[in-house]
Amino acid sequence: MESIKIFAPATIANVSCGFDVLGLALDTVGDEMVIRKTSQKGIKITKIVGQDLPLETHKNVAGVAGLAFLSALNYDHGFEIEIYKNIKPGSGIGSSAASSAGAVWAMNELLGKPFNNTQLVQFAMEGERLASGVAHADNVAPALFGGFTLVRSTDPLEIVKIHTPDQLYATVIHPQIEVKTSDAREILKSTVLLKDAITQWANVGGLISGLYTEDYELIGRSLHDTIVEPIRSILIPAFDTVKRNSIKAGALGCGISGSGPSIFALSKGEETAEKVAASMKSVYKNVGIDFDIHVSKINQQGIKII
Amino acid sequence: MESIKIFAPATIANVSCGFDVLGLALDTVGDEMVIRKTSQKGIKITKIVGQDLPLETHKNVAGVAGLAFLSALNYDHGFEIEIYKNIKPGSGIGSSAASSAGAVWAMNELLGKPFNNTQLVQFAMEGERLASGVAHADNVAPALFGGFTLVRSTDPLEIVKIHTPDQLYATVIHPQIEVKTSDAREILKSTVLLKDAITQWANVGGLISGLYTEDYELIGRSLHDTIVEPIRSILIPAFDTVKRNSIKAGALGCGISGSGPSIFALSKGEETAEKVAASMKSVYKNVGIDFDIHVSKINQQGIKII
Repeated sequence: MESIKIFAPATIANVSCGFDVLGLALDTVGDEMVIRKTSQKGIKITKIVGQDLPLETHKNVAGVAGLAFLSALNYDHGFEIEIYKNIKPGSGIGSSAASSAGAVWAMNELLGKPFNNTQLVQFAMEGERLASGVAHADNVAPALFGGFTLVRSTDPLEIVKIHTPDQLYATVIHPQIEVKTSDAREILKSTVLLKDAITQWANVGGLISGLYTEDYELIGRSLHDTIVEPIRSILIPAFDTVKRNSIKAGALGCGISGSGPSIFALSKGEETAEKVAASMKSVYKNVGIDFDIHVSKINQQGIKII
Repeated sequence: MESIKIFAPATIANVSCGFDVLGLALDTVGDEMVIRKTSQKGIKITKIVGQDLPLETHKNVAGVAGLAFLSALNYDHGFEIEIYKNIKPGSGIGSSAASSAGAVWAMNELLGKPFNNTQLVQFAMEGERLASGVAHADNVAPALFGGFTLVRSTDPLEIVKIHTPDQLYATVIHPQIEVKTSDAREILKSTVLLKDAITQWANVGGLISGLYTEDYELIGRSLHDTIVEPIRSILIPAFDTVKRNSIKAGALGCGISGSGPSIFALSKGEETAEKVAASMKSVYKNVGIDFDIHVSKINQQGIKII
């Protein structure tokens, strides 16, 4: 193979209780990329469609992730990358992660899979470092592994793929306001109450149990964030109303996607997820904020060739 | 049935990363109790063998738990309780929980199961309140449900029974020193670093994933406590040596049982658990501290009729 076209999914990081460790991949929202072997060494971004992003390799997350990949190999040639962005940067559904993960996954395919998924996460994290200053794995891991993922450890890096029930759907609304990941990090406190932390890890335990046992109600009862959401949600207009209405419309739970401003809800079944979408839309229509909205099954596979 | 004899297991609470929420039941360590219907109203403790504990109903954890049970029923009669203690109070393996849970479980059996296990946990927690001042569920839950349990929420109370692999064995050593649960609570800080809390909930996620997928290595990698063990372990002589030697002897992980002073290790298979026991024993022999030691499979069933 000299060239492949891939789909790189959008992702929801944190997933309420799992701040910095949990993530999931979407199935019908994502970027497309074409990656081509070239005789020239290095990485060249030849085309970006859909967003105004830098073509210079060192300034582009896919470029930087690709360079990390190449630096771990003895490889005399290089790659060209075309990126067709459907995920808006700054939306909070893993725009930089999709590009970073997509680039290294495709390069790995073209070279006959010299690296495993965990190694690819490590390379893709360099793209995340460029995008946000922090080499976090909670979006690139679900993009590469699919389904729900747990970053159990960052040093050494260990990703655990969590069983994901088939009827789990996500609804994600992206209000057109800007929340920078770096700002969203800065407002967090460096200490938390032990009692809140206990509540949080009890919910992480409940969520993961619910995923393995396909107990949708338990998943719903566990989708709470006592630590980060109370602080970050003040950056997102009408967050409380969106959340309350989503639950009323049947969602299992609702929270901030990544560092926002997107808000996600999880539901059992597509029909409920669509009702949740309608309830979310009406909130932002009322307050007069433009939005994008997505309803998607959870992607079990991660990045794929199209 | 007018009378039953039961086995009420010892339990390990916290299990490293799961402070205040996780617990597991032992299979071959526990108390025996005889519970008998009487025409008299109320609870009467008629005999306690093996330990010097109060016979007065209001001062005895089984009595108090039993009264909580009765207060939720219209019942014109009462119960007599005999307790054969094998678990030493203050050992950190759920001595009060076994008596409290055993009493209410047996009374429930004798009356044709008017209550479910979660309701029984709630009654038994009143015994825990008498013993330690805090109505915690992390020992009574595994005693009643068996296996690994997660206290996902205390208000409302929700217990999740976690799948427990068949080859999981516990080794528990009880150095003969006193650590009061109330003291062990008081030295904890009310705030923790967010980064440590994140590590903790990542490990809770890893442990629960490892239990469901029967991935013993993942269970082992997740058995870490960045929050409580660094503080409480200073109350337990030679803790670090016991832990280091247990891991060397093949244990998956090692930590403080409940609020101590018992130290537990989990291993895959009985043979390894016995090697771990030998390594633990030699530490306390060297430092000249008396000890009890137990090796037990994880009990899948909880309290049972014998």
